Amino acid sequence: MELIQNNRCFDGEQRIYRFNSSSLNGESRFGIFLPAQALAGQDCPALFYLAGLTCTEETFAIKAHAQRLAAQLGFILISPDTSPRGEQVAQGDHWDIGQGAGFYINATQAPWAAHYQMEQFVAEELYALVCEQFAVQTDSIGIFGHSMGGHGALTLAFKYPEKFKSVSAFAPICAPSQCPWGEKAFSAYLGDDRQGWQAHDATALVQQKGKQFADILIDQGLQDQFYSQLNPALFQAACAQAGQPLSLREHAGYDHGYYFIQSFIDDHLQFHAVQLQS
Amino acid sequence: MELIQNNRCFDGEQRIYRFNSSSLNGESRFGIFLPAQALAGQDCPALFYLAGLTCTEETFAIKAHAQRLAAQLGFILISPDTSPRGEQVAQGDHWDIGQGAGFYINATQAPWAAHYQMEQFVAEELYALVCEQFAVQTDSIGIFGHSMGGHGALTLAFKYPEKFKSVSAFAPICAPSQCPWGEKAFSAYLGDDRQGWQAHDATALVQQKGKQFADILIDQGLQDQFYSQLNPALFQAACAQAGQPLSLREHAGYDHGYYFIQSFIDDHLQFHAVQLQS
Repeated sequence: MELIQNNRCFDGEQRIYRFNSSSLNGESRFGIFLPAQALAGQDCPALFYLAGLTCTEETFAIKAHAQRLAAQLGFILISPDTSPRGEQVAQGDHWDIGQGAGFYINATQAPWAAHYQMEQFVAEELYALVCEQFAVQTDSIGIFGHSMGGHGALTLAFKYPEKFKSVSAFAPICAPSQCPWGEKAFSAYLGDDRQGWQAHDATALVQQKGKQFADILIDQGLQDQFYSQLNPALFQAACAQAGQPLSLREHAGYDHGYYFIQSFIDDHLQFHAVQLQS
Repeated sequence: MELIQNNRCFDGEQRIYRFNSSSLNGESRFGIFLPAQALAGQDCPALFYLAGLTCTEETFAIKAHAQRLAAQLGFILISPDTSPRGEQVAQGDHWDIGQGAGFYINATQAPWAAHYQMEQFVAEELYALVCEQFAVQTDSIGIFGHSMGGHGALTLAFKYPEKFKSVSAFAPICAPSQCPWGEKAFSAYLGDDRQGWQAHDATALVQQKGKQFADILIDQGLQDQFYSQLNPALFQAACAQAGQPLSLREHAGYDHGYYFIQSFIDDHLQFHAVQLQS
């Protein structure tokens, strides 16, 4: 693990590391914000943030404006890259597939399977690495994300509720089996057996697994230019049927980007603080 | 004036406009954050933010994390581009001169003089346009900036104290006549008469003009990788001699970038709020 960038920020440190990932079969980078409390060796709650299509490990640190309140609350924030990277890694034909578009699942199909193991990467390898290397309060780890990363956060939370104790999302892809982005990615990474997709679809997962969390927070802008890809109503209906409490907030005028995210980021950190303490 | 981007943000709007600038002899873009109060037609105080080398009109909006408190305080934030742009505009040999490096002065030398009229652009043309087009409380306008833009903020404030009622800066180039960046830019834009440079050097200006402001806030990181270009001590000594109050805060561990700026941006907005009310 090599520290390649380190910037003091709100008396903490915003860092970028690179390391050789066995899951991804190559080098990967992640961002991490360590509040002053963690730098002083005090175990802190931690949140994994999964970014959306085209983003990198640094997008969240630059654009989401989370560090101010994270410093105050004493939260560690971890932001992985959105896919494997490098010349040896398969490229897609468009920005919605391949590098920058890993969809937080383990690919089973060629040519993707050789590197695209993002579920294992986030939930196993990076999770373990961060818990080992930093002052993480390991029973207080949450997950959140945006768009493709909102799908990642919801699905990984339902797959690994023992690891992620709280979950929230901004404009998540709630039912990837039923939208063009998800159908394209799942066909490529998982193949054409649509039944197998259900294990990686938040709406299907909540139906299968029932209530896993005391609450889930989702913020959704109503001027979101990708609204037709997101299907929050399907997830909401599945939660209602499964008895999974959900706080779905719809915001008039807000779109899909980081100006939307920064407007509500504090609410998400406060939500995780409450969920992780209860 | 054409609106080319508009994102809802903290119940206000973060916008980008382009227009044909007579000062710059070509198209220019600027960012503007309009808080909900301004959108509702209530006159609001306004701050011009001048960015540093290589930045554009959008850098501040993405990286400085100012909108949250600006929304709360009801501040309009205006962020011009850092130079004229376009194919017809002279390019420099490096990122410290030419496009992205206008230094907020009016060039007198070829080939720069045809477009590089950034002082007139900011202090006259854009200032008037913003006051005319938006709900600006025209007796409550301040200016701040970073690095090259910190130089711009300090010098424009001392040149136009009737227009800019408050001034602050992050890691400003305090004495451009006495550092490599400034010497290169001033030689190119203004020619070799170093005496003429003094009218565009914050340290020289405070010596000439004496006390103009009740206070000036400067934040400076002590791990700033460009510290040798900045000379805060020269400005501090000139302020002391001139009787100009200055709050120069030095911060251990902080560098030159936007993770430093975001850490102290709230203090700057609060500083301007106090100065503009007094």
